[in-house]
Amino acid sequence: MALSLPETFTSVTLAERPKANIIPGTTFQTKSDNRTPSPSTLKDGEILIKTLYLSLDPAMRGWLNNTRSYIPPVQIGEVMRGSSVGIILASKSANYKTGDLVVSNSAGWVEYAVLQEKNCEKVPDTGDGKKRSAIDALSVVGMTGLTAYFGILRVGEVKEGDFVVVSGAAGATGSVVGQIAKLKGATVLGIAGSPEKCKWLTEELGFDQALNYKDPNYAKQFREATKKRLIDVYFDNVGGEILDLALSRAAPFARFVMCGGISQYNEAVQKGPKNYLMIVSMRIRMIGFIVFDYAKEYSSAREELAQWVREGKLKRGETILEGGLKEAERGLVKLYEGANTGKMLVEVAKLNGTEKSKL
Amino acid sequence: MALSLPETFTSVTLAERPKANIIPGTTFQTKSDNRTPSPSTLKDGEILIKTLYLSLDPAMRGWLNNTRSYIPPVQIGEVMRGSSVGIILASKSANYKTGDLVVSNSAGWVEYAVLQEKNCEKVPDTGDGKKRSAIDALSVVGMTGLTAYFGILRVGEVKEGDFVVVSGAAGATGSVVGQIAKLKGATVLGIAGSPEKCKWLTEELGFDQALNYKDPNYAKQFREATKKRLIDVYFDNVGGEILDLALSRAAPFARFVMCGGISQYNEAVQKGPKNYLMIVSMRIRMIGFIVFDYAKEYSSAREELAQWVREGKLKRGETILEGGLKEAERGLVKLYEGANTGKMLVEVAKLNGTEKSKL
Ligand SMILES: NC(=O)c1ccc[n+]([C@@H]2O[C@H](COP(=O)([O-])OP(=O)(O)OC[C@H]3O[C@@H](n4cnc5c(N)ncnc54)[C@H](OP(=O)(O)O)[C@@H]3O)[C@@H](O)[C@H]2O)c1
Ligand SMILES: NC(=O)c1ccc[n+]([C@@H]2O[C@H](COP(=O)([O-])OP(=O)(O)OC[C@H]3O[C@@H](n4cnc5c(N)ncnc54)[C@H](OP(=O)(O)O)[C@@H]3O)[C@@H](O)[C@H]2O)c1
Repeated sequence: MALSLPETFTSVTLAERPKANIIPGTTFQTKSDNRTPSPSTLKDGEILIKTLYLSLDPAMRGWLNNTRSYIPPVQIGEVMRGSSVGIILASKSANYKTGDLVVSNSAGWVEYAVLQEKNCEKVPDTGDGKKRSAIDALSVVGMTGLTAYFGILRVGEVKEGDFVVVSGAAGATGSVVGQIAKLKGATVLGIAGSPEKCKWLTEELGFDQALNYKDPNYAKQFREATKKRLIDVYFDNVGGEILDLALSRAAPFARFVMCGGISQYNEAVQKGPKNYLMIVSMRIRMIGFIVFDYAKEYSSAREELAQWVREGKLKRGETILEGGLKEAERGLVKLYEGANTGKMLVEVAKLNGTEKSKL
Repeated sequence: MALSLPETFTSVTLAERPKANIIPGTTFQTKSDNRTPSPSTLKDGEILIKTLYLSLDPAMRGWLNNTRSYIPPVQIGEVMRGSSVGIILASKSANYKTGDLVVSNSAGWVEYAVLQEKNCEKVPDTGDGKKRSAIDALSVVGMTGLTAYFGILRVGEVKEGDFVVVSGAAGATGSVVGQIAKLKGATVLGIAGSPEKCKWLTEELGFDQALNYKDPNYAKQFREATKKRLIDVYFDNVGGEILDLALSRAAPFARFVMCGGISQYNEAVQKGPKNYLMIVSMRIRMIGFIVFDYAKEYSSAREELAQWVREGKLKRGETILEGGLKEAERGLVKLYEGANTGKMLVEVAKLNGTEKSKL
């Protein structure tokens, strides 16, 4: 039995490639369409979903550039790419039924979509109800949780006693990185953009210390915090001066896990780390990774993450923007401004009564 | 029986730390001393040497900075540090006898020195006579040969079929890196600073291709040369724009062996690679190393290198500055100007008749 569908639906496409910052209203185009996908035209193995939550990711800025990268750029006129959680309104798949929640990278910035079953995954149960699990599926057990997991465990090879420093620590990835490092017995210093975020890291998430990089004394504080002990593992989400300072305080043979560099994403010309020659003198292993490379291990990693969440060992946080799909482009800009604590999401639609009863 | 000694001898000490470029006559101080070490005061285990050749190394610039690095800086007033080969004039060591050639990092920029036997090593036989072996001991089987060896084999893990790019390719380290990569079945592109150097690389050393980075069309040529195939292993000796361009042409999972960054050594403020975010998107492993970390394996590596030289599989080149110790500081500056093809050495003294007869 299909759930109710509206006559028009909204999608957001790429209108032009930004040179530096994304310009809401210019970079993207919001379209209203009256060809809402219909349950009657579903083919075998397909499902029709209504998007509930959309993930906003710093990497999206990179997908707008027409350059060689780990995935092809989004094309002009194409629906913007992104992870989302949807509720199934109709299903011709044996694996999914109406009312199931699915997470997918294939729908993108749309209110309704028809998806292939092979491009969907079930929302893992994180223990506090379906709505909570839907959010977690884009956050702590979603791509950013997985990124944190593989980044700190596989690339960073964190071990007991390590001194770990995480930039972008109060973000979706960073907040999970620091907590996993703590679970493994490391000492963790987080770097984030406000006193409130720092407080959240130490008081809620159990980081040993947190520093606000916007404090005018940050460089001094950072040198102080790394005086007794140099950095064994540095997990980088931001690049720029924060990375440069971390390089200057790297222990011999430190591992630098290169996850991202959000401070540089909107720059027309990026700045490289001027202290990069510490890589030679301190024999640093600076290793880039993309979470996609670990796709085969997603499900076991998700299980472990969900388990930690259920046991209360892993705490999550998120900033959810309400107001539907039209908030996505502004939300993306806000992400680069640090508006989020934990995972940045857009609530694309609320469940109606019938949908709620299906859950 | 001791060989002849003069009444005075010269040493070169650090006078002041350069801010940017080394200034001959200012950075260093050349001293004449009448306390030439005497055979009669040798203690057990000590040898007295006369320096024959001195190695000039780009890293020397770093040793002049008062910053945290892999070895302590040279102190003001201290004899400048460096590798050298000397002939033994007198020995109280059971391992060495008068007339033996030794290589050491402990003598530095001096004409005569008393050394502990434990700080010396015998000059390996590279097959073409003692004088040739003395030069090779600072070059192809010396620290730069070892740097090339461990860098490309251990850090770069070069293997058959790899596409290897080497910067500073016509220098002491780079020229050996490229040849070892060829021995292991890689395709090798070298980057050097003149058409003559490029010709030497392809025609004498067997590199597959060489490009002159000073050519105004270099960037275009480089993109062309890496069009069909992206870079599997990049061995960096220079940093700067050459590194940046290499990053832009890295294959997924490329290894970047970070050996040095000579283009940045004399800069008051270094420039980082602005394309460093390719490390993330291409999952590059950028790994710094210092040859000293492999000290335990020096002797087996030296043997293998010497063997390759004797078999004609490894060719060497050097630029030897005549004129004695006073040439060292000017020679060092010339090194940063690319005056050398292969290893840059200073001939500190020629052998006199008696010494020659001892060899
Ligand atoms: N390699 C991979 O596979 C992979 C996968 C996912 C994500 N990533 C990367 O991981 C990083 C974090 O992504 P996320 O999704 O977890 O986002 P996030 O950290 O939740 O959000 C971005 C955060 O970055 C901080 N930020 C923004 N501009 C900054 C600047 N100029 N300097 C320092 N911090 C700045 C802001 O917090 P403040 O208030 O602290 O400034 C903001 O909240 C990004 O670089 C992303 O590209 C990589
Ligand atoms: N990690 C270690 O343990 C270790 C050990 C030894 C050496 N190293 C490093 O390895 C590198 C090579 O050392 P080496 O002793 O073999 O010296 P080298 O390569 O024999 O001599 C230096 C060469 O660098 C080139 N060069 C100078 N300025 C340059 C610039 N601005 N841009 C590009 N190239 C420039 C010059 O050749 P062109 O004519 O081509 O410009 C010059 O001949 C250095 O960075 C050194 O610090 C590291």
